[in-house]
Amino acid sequence: MIEIVSQKTRISEGKEGIRRILREIYRNEQIGTKELAYITKLPVPVVAAVRAELEKIGLISRKRGAVLTEDGKKYVEDVLGFEVKKSLICPLCHGRKIIIKDEFQEVLKKMKKYADLRPKPYTWLDQAFCTPETSVLRALFMLEEGDVEGREIIFLGDDDLTSIATGLLKVSKKITVIDVDERLLELINKISEHEGISIECIHHDLRNPLPKKLIDRFDVTFTDPPYTITGMKLFVSRGIDALKKKKCASIYLSFAHKPPEDMLNLQVAISEMGLFIREMIPKFNRYEGAEIFANTTFLAKLETTEKTRPSIHGRFDGKIYTGEVSPTMRIYKCRCGRVIKVGVSGEFKTIEELKTYGCPECGRKEGFKLTERKRLFFSEEKY
Amino acid sequence: MIEIVSQKTRISEGKEGIRRILREIYRNEQIGTKELAYITKLPVPVVAAVRAELEKIGLISRKRGAVLTEDGKKYVEDVLGFEVKKSLICPLCHGRKIIIKDEFQEVLKKMKKYADLRPKPYTWLDQAFCTPETSVLRALFMLEEGDVEGREIIFLGDDDLTSIATGLLKVSKKITVIDVDERLLELINKISEHEGISIECIHHDLRNPLPKKLIDRFDVTFTDPPYTITGMKLFVSRGIDALKKKKCASIYLSFAHKPPEDMLNLQVAISEMGLFIREMIPKFNRYEGAEIFANTTFLAKLETTEKTRPSIHGRFDGKIYTGEVSPTMRIYKCRCGRVIKVGVSGEFKTIEELKTYGCPECGRKEGFKLTERKRLFFSEEKY
Repeated sequence: MIEIVSQKTRISEGKEGIRRILREIYRNEQIGTKELAYITKLPVPVVAAVRAELEKIGLISRKRGAVLTEDGKKYVEDVLGFEVKKSLICPLCHGRKIIIKDEFQEVLKKMKKYADLRPKPYTWLDQAFCTPETSVLRALFMLEEGDVEGREIIFLGDDDLTSIATGLLKVSKKITVIDVDERLLELINKISEHEGISIECIHHDLRNPLPKKLIDRFDVTFTDPPYTITGMKLFVSRGIDALKKKKCASIYLSFAHKPPEDMLNLQVAISEMGLFIREMIPKFNRYEGAEIFANTTFLAKLETTEKTRPSIHGRFDGKIYTGEVSPTMRIYKCRCGRVIKVGVSGEFKTIEELKTYGCPECGRKEGFKLTERKRLFFSEEKY
Repeated sequence: MIEIVSQKTRISEGKEGIRRILREIYRNEQIGTKELAYITKLPVPVVAAVRAELEKIGLISRKRGAVLTEDGKKYVEDVLGFEVKKSLICPLCHGRKIIIKDEFQEVLKKMKKYADLRPKPYTWLDQAFCTPETSVLRALFMLEEGDVEGREIIFLGDDDLTSIATGLLKVSKKITVIDVDERLLELINKISEHEGISIECIHHDLRNPLPKKLIDRFDVTFTDPPYTITGMKLFVSRGIDALKKKKCASIYLSFAHKPPEDMLNLQVAISEMGLFIREMIPKFNRYEGAEIFANTTFLAKLETTEKTRPSIHGRFDGKIYTGEVSPTMRIYKCRCGRVIKVGVSGEFKTIEELKTYGCPECGRKEGFKLTERKRLFFSEEKY
């Protein structure tokens, strides 16, 4: 049964992906698509497509969120063996290891205020703003790891204002931010002056090598790069250039939970730069309005070794943004009002396919109106 | 200053390793060597050697544990910038993500009882027993990840009785344990019968390929292999053989926090098998009497991809146990009573060196008595 749904939806995670979705519907009893995507770390369009298929075969129904039908409940209990509904995840830190103690609530309060000042995300730069809590947790995570006190820290891209959260801890030696978006640098500069935390802001496109004065100068790198493997390689390579040459220097990397083959390629790319993963926390970062990566990404702490080398040198002209490497999803509207997603992970792969099978609601085979195009990213491997 | 200590002790983590040790002495104000090793994830002998050097140069003194001297305090605050003493780690789960809820306290109680029945560890098989809490947390972690309910699980080596903890959850479909140590299998069999959890026990040396009946049969693999890279490759390769061929199947791997170059090689080996790290929690596992790896190891959740392949096929005759790949530490006693460690990470690298510099306590240059040999493992790279 789940094999069929997996094939129909071409979900990169295969049968296991379908099982994960069913398990969370079972555990949560009634759950919306966004929350389901977040919990399973799968893109919202993927979850929506799976949900539609599961509905079609009668395993779930839709009552303010996905709910298992009687048949569905029987299937997941008898065939898949589900039984336990409670989550075992720590209710205090929600699996993020770090908590925001009382003395840092003031920092959080400020970050909530400053978050509202962020300019509208430039999606073509893969900007997506994380929650103020996430920025503070990132700063505290680095602090706990010994990477804020007395440290010189460089942020490669900082649409999340994590540099501000870090600066507000007032224990670092130096904070530098590089970004290609001048709007963000202006904002960071303004807040930094207001708070007296003297963050150095440098306007720079990381496709160009770092300015000489930034080479070999930092203890710590933080980056939330474009979510393509090449984007990660480029940003982390620049991060390596910025670090003082020593073992066990930290590079904090936020990145999307990608499909299995991409995760593998990502980690091969990390190893190839002579870095290893010290720690990896799924769903550490939460975002708003970033459905394509389920509004959540992981945080990894990478460390340098004697073999650490950048994999990209000099000017880089390849594709780094998701819009450059991934296809789009087209949203059609049928005359009956039904919204239909067409694309690699849509209900239909192509408009031809839709016209062949007809609208899932009314059966019409023509007269679909294109209402929207959405950028996707799933497996880079597939394209 | 820390550069010198780093060179003298030849610590694989370099200056950063010394900084980490100083930071934890600062944060904890007074801390014993074992606890210091646990917190920094560094082997006890390494920490002891660094502590001795730090004492020598006057940064710390010893008063029921390491304490910073006035000079030391000044140095770490002024030069290294330390300031924050509080830990930000979640006080409920201690960064392990999972907690043992009330309904599982009974399982923990049983595991405490059964842990006492474990036979004396065969150190030449790299046996080291984890705490009963650790076994239960591992089982619950897998449960939370959807890898116990309705699952067929294989444990490759199980001196920790994690199979029992998992069986006691009573929701799995099948549990199989392979071990080369018949004493453990007997114990597991006995408990399994007593508890009615029907664990299948198979006596088998993993240097030989898996019996045919175990190939392509499981959903989940759990292993805490010998802490050598070859050992990991062998055990995980057998684990891959045991798994049904599908994407996103889980392999749970417990492994020591090794020096940077080893961590890199370990992760290269993982990538080479077409596996990726989904999650990695440092210090998840706690052990008793395993000072050489600081009584703690990490837990990683690996997942399969379409490219997953074992890297070792057929019978394997290479070295897999730490005793086979790492040198020993010799413990000498001076006539004045001072205990002196000699070896790669000791206070002196060789007995010749000790005789040249003399006893650190009384200065004697001869008459040292060999009292003990200890197996070490630090970097496999170095040897």
